[in-house]
Amino acid sequence: MRGVVLHGSHDVRVEERPDPVVEQPTDAVLRLVASCVCGSDLWSYRGTDAVRRPSPMGHEYVGVVEQVGDDVRDVRVGDLVVGSFFASDNTCEICLAGYQSRCVHKVPMGALGAQAERLRVPLADGTLVVVPGDPTPAQLKGLLAASDVLGTGWFAAVAAEAGPGRTVAVVGDGAVGLLGVLAARRLGAERVIAMSRHADRQALARRFGATDIVTERGDEGVARVKELTGGLGAHSVIEAVGTQEAMMQAIRSTRPGGHVGFVGVSHGVEIPGLELFASGVHLHGGPAPVRRFLPELVDLVMRDEIDAGAVFDLTLPLERAAEAYAAMDERRATKVMLTF
Amino acid sequence: MRGVVLHGSHDVRVEERPDPVVEQPTDAVLRLVASCVCGSDLWSYRGTDAVRRPSPMGHEYVGVVEQVGDDVRDVRVGDLVVGSFFASDNTCEICLAGYQSRCVHKVPMGALGAQAERLRVPLADGTLVVVPGDPTPAQLKGLLAASDVLGTGWFAAVAAEAGPGRTVAVVGDGAVGLLGVLAARRLGAERVIAMSRHADRQALARRFGATDIVTERGDEGVARVKELTGGLGAHSVIEAVGTQEAMMQAIRSTRPGGHVGFVGVSHGVEIPGLELFASGVHLHGGPAPVRRFLPELVDLVMRDEIDAGAVFDLTLPLERAAEAYAAMDERRATKVMLTF
Repeated sequence: MRGVVLHGSHDVRVEERPDPVVEQPTDAVLRLVASCVCGSDLWSYRGTDAVRRPSPMGHEYVGVVEQVGDDVRDVRVGDLVVGSFFASDNTCEICLAGYQSRCVHKVPMGALGAQAERLRVPLADGTLVVVPGDPTPAQLKGLLAASDVLGTGWFAAVAAEAGPGRTVAVVGDGAVGLLGVLAARRLGAERVIAMSRHADRQALARRFGATDIVTERGDEGVARVKELTGGLGAHSVIEAVGTQEAMMQAIRSTRPGGHVGFVGVSHGVEIPGLELFASGVHLHGGPAPVRRFLPELVDLVMRDEIDAGAVFDLTLPLERAAEAYAAMDERRATKVMLTF
Repeated sequence: MRGVVLHGSHDVRVEERPDPVVEQPTDAVLRLVASCVCGSDLWSYRGTDAVRRPSPMGHEYVGVVEQVGDDVRDVRVGDLVVGSFFASDNTCEICLAGYQSRCVHKVPMGALGAQAERLRVPLADGTLVVVPGDPTPAQLKGLLAASDVLGTGWFAAVAAEAGPGRTVAVVGDGAVGLLGVLAARRLGAERVIAMSRHADRQALARRFGATDIVTERGDEGVARVKELTGGLGAHSVIEAVGTQEAMMQAIRSTRPGGHVGFVGVSHGVEIPGLELFASGVHLHGGPAPVRRFLPELVDLVMRDEIDAGAVFDLTLPLERAAEAYAAMDERRATKVMLTF
């Protein structure tokens, strides 16, 4: 089959990879309908994360089940399914508590490479959610978003305790931050402050329900959020970048007793203990347990309640994956869908 | 009046200080009945925190109201009262959210020096809680504990979301950690693991409801907690020390999705962002909003529902405060009450 392999910084190739097969009785093999490039893929594309060997890429997917192992019960050949970036059994104590991304049997899907024609999904019953009915093209984009960026933005908003009466600030205007805006509004937040300097992303933030835009960053951004919140800071802040500046901007924009939901993959972040102590904020985040939210998100998408697929502003065939990476790297696209 | 002044590392003196007076119409002046030495006082006593000038000490107090300003309504001359280490208006948005230690008008009581015969309390109506009835000697100790160490241990247990069905681990066997054990059990925790290497403190932890004792520290302590919790880690962990080792021990002892409540005053702590991200824990702490819990704690103490005063294992007259500091510094005492 054809699949994306990263050979080094800025070296994306689409090449022949072995067709996946059922290896464990709990596996399924999918023929993918859509995949995409993630903001987190850019860490290795840009060389921030070292690329030590040619690596299959991709961890977001919507597909049709082609084969299942003998122990798979809930997923059938022919089902259209969505999964997330960790396979999980969805039955262990950690999964039952809602932290499927930390399942005791978790398998990172990124290592299996979902930017490809086919994908093996371990723990298929625990990992995959069956899509009811035939999605429209817009719904397909929404389902693909649910696989990671929508699920991650949703988790960030939940971790930040976005809800009625709350003011939520969002640090980061990538797909996750923008969908964090959407999630915060759906969860009932009264006011959502999107922090962005890019007109196209500001427009999408507004479309997703942002009530205020702050263009300043760092300490100036913090000061603006405080100005907008009676000097106190936001109740809830989403951090969707992963840098030191973004994390500190998030903590400092939050009022005492407020909540920071952080989902940017940390790169070189060190949180000063005394400042965190003095801040009095709640801090929660990490790799989003997207599976917790996936049934609800699939339902919202298929009922056209949310238009999360609007984050995809470019669609390319798999063979042009290198262009997809470049477009996101150069911020010419927010999120690129790959089709087959 | 007589009061404790720290002149430098290990240089505690009891000397004449000016009698406090009502300065603001919202002030009260108390004649203290009991005060004490805090574990956090040891940071400057030991020279970890620099002592730049002679500093009045103490921020824990039970006293009788001697004078009130013209705007004080709820507290009357003659009332026996307890307050905490931050004066707070208890009416601002932050106080109403339960974060009185971050009140927009907060005043740190430590700067006013509660290890003294008299104490000025700003924002008296917001800060002080009137004690109903005449406390017994044991109840008086409990009230004094409520002023800080009990309130702080209670907040830590709440921040760690201790409750029914939960296993709680406690890092730190000082007065706050021990009272964190008591709080976790009162909040319904099924199992409380106290981490301590000292027989006397282990005994007090058991008395306060600890079900397990772990003597190992650092990574070995983490491994022991995991052994006791089916490999997953505790649901809730209280950090009551303030060092890097204790913070990392707390984070690593917590299961994914679990909660760390940290109340040790951070000294040189730097939290690695990527490890926190990967851990999936909730982190919340800081200077405890003791005032949130004070009415309930005063009630529990006066109804003999809890014996929090048992943390005081030495009582000395104010004039012997230097001995009190030395006894705590050398771990000959857990907590020393000062009387007048």
